[in-house]
Amino acid sequence: MKSKLIVFDTTLRDGEQSPGASMTKEEKVRIARQLEKLGVDVIEAGFAAASPGDADAIHSIAKVIERSTVCSLARASEKDVRAAGEAIKPAKHKRIHTFIATSPIHMQHKLRMTEDQVVERAVQAVKWAREYTDDVEFSAEDAIRSDMDFLVRIFDAVIQAGATTLNVPDTVGYSIPVLLGEHFKQLIARVPNSDKVIWSTHCHNDLGMASANSLAAVMNGARQVECTINGLGERAGNAALEEIVMAVKTRRDVFDCDTRIDTTQIVPTSKLVSSITGYPIQPNKAIVGANAFAHESGIHQDGVLKHRETYEIMRAEDVGWGANKMVMGKHSGRAAFRARLQELGIVLEGEEAVNAAFARFKDLADKKHDIFDEDLQALVSDEEATQVSEHYRLVSMRAHSETGILPKAQVTVSVGGEEKSAEMHGGGPVDATFKAIEQIVQSGTELLLYSVNNITSGTDAQGEVTVRLSKGGRIVNGQGADTDIVVASAKSYLNALNKLHSTEERAHPQV
Amino acid sequence: MKSKLIVFDTTLRDGEQSPGASMTKEEKVRIARQLEKLGVDVIEAGFAAASPGDADAIHSIAKVIERSTVCSLARASEKDVRAAGEAIKPAKHKRIHTFIATSPIHMQHKLRMTEDQVVERAVQAVKWAREYTDDVEFSAEDAIRSDMDFLVRIFDAVIQAGATTLNVPDTVGYSIPVLLGEHFKQLIARVPNSDKVIWSTHCHNDLGMASANSLAAVMNGARQVECTINGLGERAGNAALEEIVMAVKTRRDVFDCDTRIDTTQIVPTSKLVSSITGYPIQPNKAIVGANAFAHESGIHQDGVLKHRETYEIMRAEDVGWGANKMVMGKHSGRAAFRARLQELGIVLEGEEAVNAAFARFKDLADKKHDIFDEDLQALVSDEEATQVSEHYRLVSMRAHSETGILPKAQVTVSVGGEEKSAEMHGGGPVDATFKAIEQIVQSGTELLLYSVNNITSGTDAQGEVTVRLSKGGRIVNGQGADTDIVVASAKSYLNALNKLHSTEERAHPQV
Repeated sequence: MKSKLIVFDTTLRDGEQSPGASMTKEEKVRIARQLEKLGVDVIEAGFAAASPGDADAIHSIAKVIERSTVCSLARASEKDVRAAGEAIKPAKHKRIHTFIATSPIHMQHKLRMTEDQVVERAVQAVKWAREYTDDVEFSAEDAIRSDMDFLVRIFDAVIQAGATTLNVPDTVGYSIPVLLGEHFKQLIARVPNSDKVIWSTHCHNDLGMASANSLAAVMNGARQVECTINGLGERAGNAALEEIVMAVKTRRDVFDCDTRIDTTQIVPTSKLVSSITGYPIQPNKAIVGANAFAHESGIHQDGVLKHRETYEIMRAEDVGWGANKMVMGKHSGRAAFRARLQELGIVLEGEEAVNAAFARFKDLADKKHDIFDEDLQALVSDEEATQVSEHYRLVSMRAHSETGILPKAQVTVSVGGEEKSAEMHGGGPVDATFKAIEQIVQSGTELLLYSVNNITSGTDAQGEVTVRLSKGGRIVNGQGADTDIVVASAKSYLNALNKLHSTEERAHPQV
Repeated sequence: MKSKLIVFDTTLRDGEQSPGASMTKEEKVRIARQLEKLGVDVIEAGFAAASPGDADAIHSIAKVIERSTVCSLARASEKDVRAAGEAIKPAKHKRIHTFIATSPIHMQHKLRMTEDQVVERAVQAVKWAREYTDDVEFSAEDAIRSDMDFLVRIFDAVIQAGATTLNVPDTVGYSIPVLLGEHFKQLIARVPNSDKVIWSTHCHNDLGMASANSLAAVMNGARQVECTINGLGERAGNAALEEIVMAVKTRRDVFDCDTRIDTTQIVPTSKLVSSITGYPIQPNKAIVGANAFAHESGIHQDGVLKHRETYEIMRAEDVGWGANKMVMGKHSGRAAFRARLQELGIVLEGEEAVNAAFARFKDLADKKHDIFDEDLQALVSDEEATQVSEHYRLVSMRAHSETGILPKAQVTVSVGGEEKSAEMHGGGPVDATFKAIEQIVQSGTELLLYSVNNITSGTDAQGEVTVRLSKGGRIVNGQGADTDIVVASAKSYLNALNKLHSTEERAHPQV
């Protein structure tokens, strides 16, 4: 009988710290529901002390998630721990995850604390957390660059204080598998009562080895992996859930543990997270990239595939590829629409929201022949994006481009309820559209990134546009979907402006 | 003194086997020049026996590359080896890389050969190769799933036959670091005269561990790593050059070897390969992703960066970030334009090509204020794309989109010199444009992917559109760049159609 490997997903916390990936409460709840469906054991839903919005999102997730444990991050301070404790209160299974840095460089330059002070704070934080739940995780930030003796000391102390999971993060993505494995082996051997707790790994991908490092930890006794969907996260991201889960499953001969993940939900979850955060997945990404499985990308294999296993170690179906069936079209009715949303785990609050979404569906069906699951996801995201904060709203637009003539766009935007129009020339219809919007809004933002991905294939696919805007050091991503790429661009730009208009500054912890 | 780790880049061979990533001869030469600038030791330039076009591209690269070794792949057959030998003939330093499968599953199901037959063929292939060069590499395809005793036997035999580099590929991306390391250790210990050859690792990324696996091999005696820029390659790709090189450099404390790579050329090379192949790089890709370095993505670090090393283990400048300086504009002259192309390693053949490129530059400068290095690269790629095979050429077009009205496009295309026009409606201006082109061309292709990335930031950036078309099992990517995204889309679609029209079928070996 294999032992259990706990999958701790931090897409909603560490993943959300990617530049511009911040999500609305509704988006977070949708992802949390999908993570529960995927079979994740622990959902780190956010960092409650970061902002009232974060706390509110965690609280909303705690109310709806039943099978997975809901967790909030908290620095080792009373204020943070109590904010976390309050936010997770409605959850059936709840965890507080508190952390403090333990490496000399971090203690000296960031915390300006002595070793004794750090231990005292960690112990105190764990005790506060235990007032709210018996499930308390402690992380030694930058553990990989910490002194081994000090790690043993602080882990011993927090176990005595009541911590039940000990996390050993490679905060800067610095380790390599053989060293990290050795690190875990030594720690587990030296820390008293180490068999009474779950050891956890949390790896960053700066040198491209987050998954391999996580697995090295597992081979040396770790029984929790902290990871994100698509490896999302700051800088080069976190360890990718899909890689770890499939490695453990594919190499049963090597690993004496297993997860309870429903692997057929991996690709749908990956697509949902990509669509909501605006972070594309490169085609050659392992497991979830469009090319990851040869037969999915349509390669003509010159007849060598006489035997499937010649080149394939996993089956595409096992991770949920090929589940994208055509589901709806012009003639699909309201009941079918509603049923499909339910199957996709999309919950719309109230009749009015369903009506609005159905109206959009019908509009889309007029322009697009086959409506896929991804189209429905995009449609609902778009709906939510416009609901959140509707300070700026696209009323109408037209754009013209012609070879040899300077492109031109005319845009009408509702600004706080008042309609304003502008017409501008530009390098292309999208440039002209953005210039016309800026003419109206005068936001003074800088466009950092612009990208389009089609949500489904075929020429009548919807274009999903992501823009990343920066203003005064703050960065937001905006998304917009439409069969018309220029209209989608306008929507994404206004979506980003609305986020800049409504969102608050937040603290970004690093673990 | 550290020993040398040989960097063997196979972007032009294994990387090119990614669906739709096939490149023209001119594109391959440009990448080869950049790889030489990067300091790659061996450039695998192609697979000569695949097609006359492949052989010609290798030959062209062999003529211009001086410092790097130029290599061609060859199956273990006389025809393949001789084709490789002829193709690399002009090179200053030349290598033939021959391979045969050694795993039971491949020998039985693909080759239908006995162990004795496989050894005999391998030995013979190495001997043929030695007629052309003293630098001969032998790969045991699917080595990781091969029997250890058989591997020892075949490697012993090919060393005696004259092989100088022995490659142990993880063809299906199946291994994990600790096992692969052990594999190398055993092999090197057991193969007679193993100290007379260079041991090489070639890892695929199906479980996301290609780089970590490669490094495990290096820690156990491998002194050549086979890799690609951006980890390009079939399925989830190959080990990424940038990750391996930076891991070895960053962890000098662990690795007793070093490469001669000029790391400041990593990001420029990455961008060039992405732009030519149409394979985007996800923002959270290690080293070369847009977010890989916090300060590049503009994150507001809440003042924690009192000490740079708190979170950074590498400096962005060291891998070539930030080298994208504004270089040219409307008032830049021909001499400056020419000089900059030279600095970028772009060689245009003849005055006419320079004139045409300069005219395009002036057109662009009329529409776009600041012209960056990436714009120049795109401009030349675009120029080359239209030169290659000009069966279909965009003459003129106009597209209109307006909320509430069905978008419409009118396109005129030159088909083998004859101008034809069509006007079509569509879900958006891009859809309408593609439909109008199809109305003219009647290609019957299927659109698999559509994506846009802006080449530089700012609203007047050029959009670089990539389309992936499929027809009768063949797949091609088309690229087009323009400040007008709809025009860029038309160009990319026609570029893909030209490739379908001109390119030949080729064999795709798997190593």
